[in-house]
Amino acid sequence: MLINDIPYHTIWLDDKGRIKTFDQRYLPFKIKIITLRTSDDVYSAIREMKLRGAPAIGVAAAYGMYLACKESKSASAPGKYILKKYKQLLSARPTAVNLQFALKNSLEEINNHDDKISAALEYANKLKAYEIDACKKIGEYGVKLIENIYKKKKSTVNILTHCNAGWLACIEYGTATAPIYFAAAKKIPVHVWVEETRPRNQGASITAFELYHNHIPHTIICDNAGGYVLQKKMADIVITGSDRTTANGDVCNKIGTYKTALAAFDNGVPFYAAVPSSSFDLSIDNGLSEIPIEERTPDEVDYISGLYKNKLVKVRITPPHSMSKNFGFDITPAKLVTGLITDKGIISPVRKENIKAIILSEFISQMRS
Amino acid sequence: MLINDIPYHTIWLDDKGRIKTFDQRYLPFKIKIITLRTSDDVYSAIREMKLRGAPAIGVAAAYGMYLACKESKSASAPGKYILKKYKQLLSARPTAVNLQFALKNSLEEINNHDDKISAALEYANKLKAYEIDACKKIGEYGVKLIENIYKKKKSTVNILTHCNAGWLACIEYGTATAPIYFAAAKKIPVHVWVEETRPRNQGASITAFELYHNHIPHTIICDNAGGYVLQKKMADIVITGSDRTTANGDVCNKIGTYKTALAAFDNGVPFYAAVPSSSFDLSIDNGLSEIPIEERTPDEVDYISGLYKNKLVKVRITPPHSMSKNFGFDITPAKLVTGLITDKGIISPVRKENIKAIILSEFISQMRS
Repeated sequence: MLINDIPYHTIWLDDKGRIKTFDQRYLPFKIKIITLRTSDDVYSAIREMKLRGAPAIGVAAAYGMYLACKESKSASAPGKYILKKYKQLLSARPTAVNLQFALKNSLEEINNHDDKISAALEYANKLKAYEIDACKKIGEYGVKLIENIYKKKKSTVNILTHCNAGWLACIEYGTATAPIYFAAAKKIPVHVWVEETRPRNQGASITAFELYHNHIPHTIICDNAGGYVLQKKMADIVITGSDRTTANGDVCNKIGTYKTALAAFDNGVPFYAAVPSSSFDLSIDNGLSEIPIEERTPDEVDYISGLYKNKLVKVRITPPHSMSKNFGFDITPAKLVTGLITDKGIISPVRKENIKAIILSEFISQMRS
Repeated sequence: MLINDIPYHTIWLDDKGRIKTFDQRYLPFKIKIITLRTSDDVYSAIREMKLRGAPAIGVAAAYGMYLACKESKSASAPGKYILKKYKQLLSARPTAVNLQFALKNSLEEINNHDDKISAALEYANKLKAYEIDACKKIGEYGVKLIENIYKKKKSTVNILTHCNAGWLACIEYGTATAPIYFAAAKKIPVHVWVEETRPRNQGASITAFELYHNHIPHTIICDNAGGYVLQKKMADIVITGSDRTTANGDVCNKIGTYKTALAAFDNGVPFYAAVPSSSFDLSIDNGLSEIPIEERTPDEVDYISGLYKNKLVKVRITPPHSMSKNFGFDITPAKLVTGLITDKGIISPVRKENIKAIILSEFISQMRS
């Protein structure tokens, strides 16, 4: 997608074969391209959220395994070294299922081939291409929802989104944003309500940044205001991402998604999660009881980064004597989800048998091939 | 209530008869006491939210009328001057019904007395005493809810609150916080989840500040995290304030209250609004269609104040090219409200006839007396 009218992917190999990405923590104020030279660099980038978003994390981890293979040549016990790096990368973020399968599949490829470096690189490249294609298909399926609203309404379609499920969380198009870009390409007038998404403000800082650079009209609101926007029917549809979707269709996504889904449901506004099939976790049913919720550092609640006199600074916004807690995700139960926009088609109503029918067989065979 | 173990009211007359209050915009980092010397000072204090909260605004406005009467002695047309100031003060904040009745009643007292200055001062003092008593009664009624939970649970009662409906929004005790202080006084172990309440963060900055200085255990969370806390039943009850409550029991309160109420309802956690009877507006039924929602400056979304190198600075947190919108309030429909904790008793279930029975006759006679 575009930044200053130049097309980029979120992760790419430069002409010297080095892995490049953006340090997204400086967005929207500074566009900082970084080089990931070692598997440790990849671990830190994921851990410190220079790079975030389920699909992007998976692809980055696969490239991390490629770097680990290169590093292992000089290690005294190469097999052990790769396994150590595998475990380290796996620990970088506990919630994203993409991280788990990308690493598992990469390790399988490495174990099955003599030329481990090539095998790891080939898998990473293949996963990247797969994720781009998945987002493209989500866009193609999802655009029909926006198109149908436009056909009835005959005026601007207002989409509300939470957090960043945009191309910088993926590789290209994004998940939640893909249908929006496809609608704009079809000349359907769209406007996006962007919930800022505390505590890290990925909505205000990254989604708004992406939409601006790709020429999509949008308005930033506080997460709190999403309820009012939905009460007043100022949004026609809600589309968010999903970090992990269970066999029942429970959506584990950025903290706050649940509240927004409740507000959409209460006002009869359809709520869709855009989900690449790689983000399904069919091994679990009940999101609320079975998905461990990452508790992140309270610093993310206590401090915020912003521009002060043209410099990016971190300011304290809570009283020094008060304690804070920082839950990273919540669960939107399937009952609140109108549909899941996947790369295999739209699943609606959200029921276990409908999810299994579309996702299960095809996905496993494709990712293991 | 206490700040650094010294008892204060939110608004007071010092020994020279000057009106004093806190500039709450510096909280929690700086305790700044200011003097309101003119009715213009009062207008600015309300308009710029140095002072906020429905009851405190009403009391401040009444003292503003007192100052206007003093100023009118030197005006060429005293009656016209007072009316001009009345209209100016009325325009300071459109949502708070307390502002409207305080000014109306003050004007009536002024019109009915020859010594206008004394009449205005007497009304302001009486209104202040009335608001203190209202919060005290809310505390006495509301503590029973916490007590009942404690009797069943026999361990710490967790209360979730949104925004600041504390003593700094009132004069003493607060509305939503009054039952908490009364519970603590009865040695019931309590813990408060404080939603930060974007965009102005009155929860993180003022409620947390109040609770800390009054020795109540509490934890700050992002507004988004309130849903997860309720999903996991980490809160036993939600208590918020209400800027304006309709005859049907719809609660107009700080933006985000609606989303929190939805999450409470979805998880079977009781949701109470603490409402002094002065905040009822029985002239309207439907909050969503009849209450105009204040749209405040987008600067409150785009910028945030925080401590940087021990200095309070304002930083920009949204991309410079993106537009923001800032809706100040939302409507929590009566169907989501378990009960209203008023100074006349608890209204539950929330139905028009129950509200009328408790509020209507007594309140009007009392405030007009």
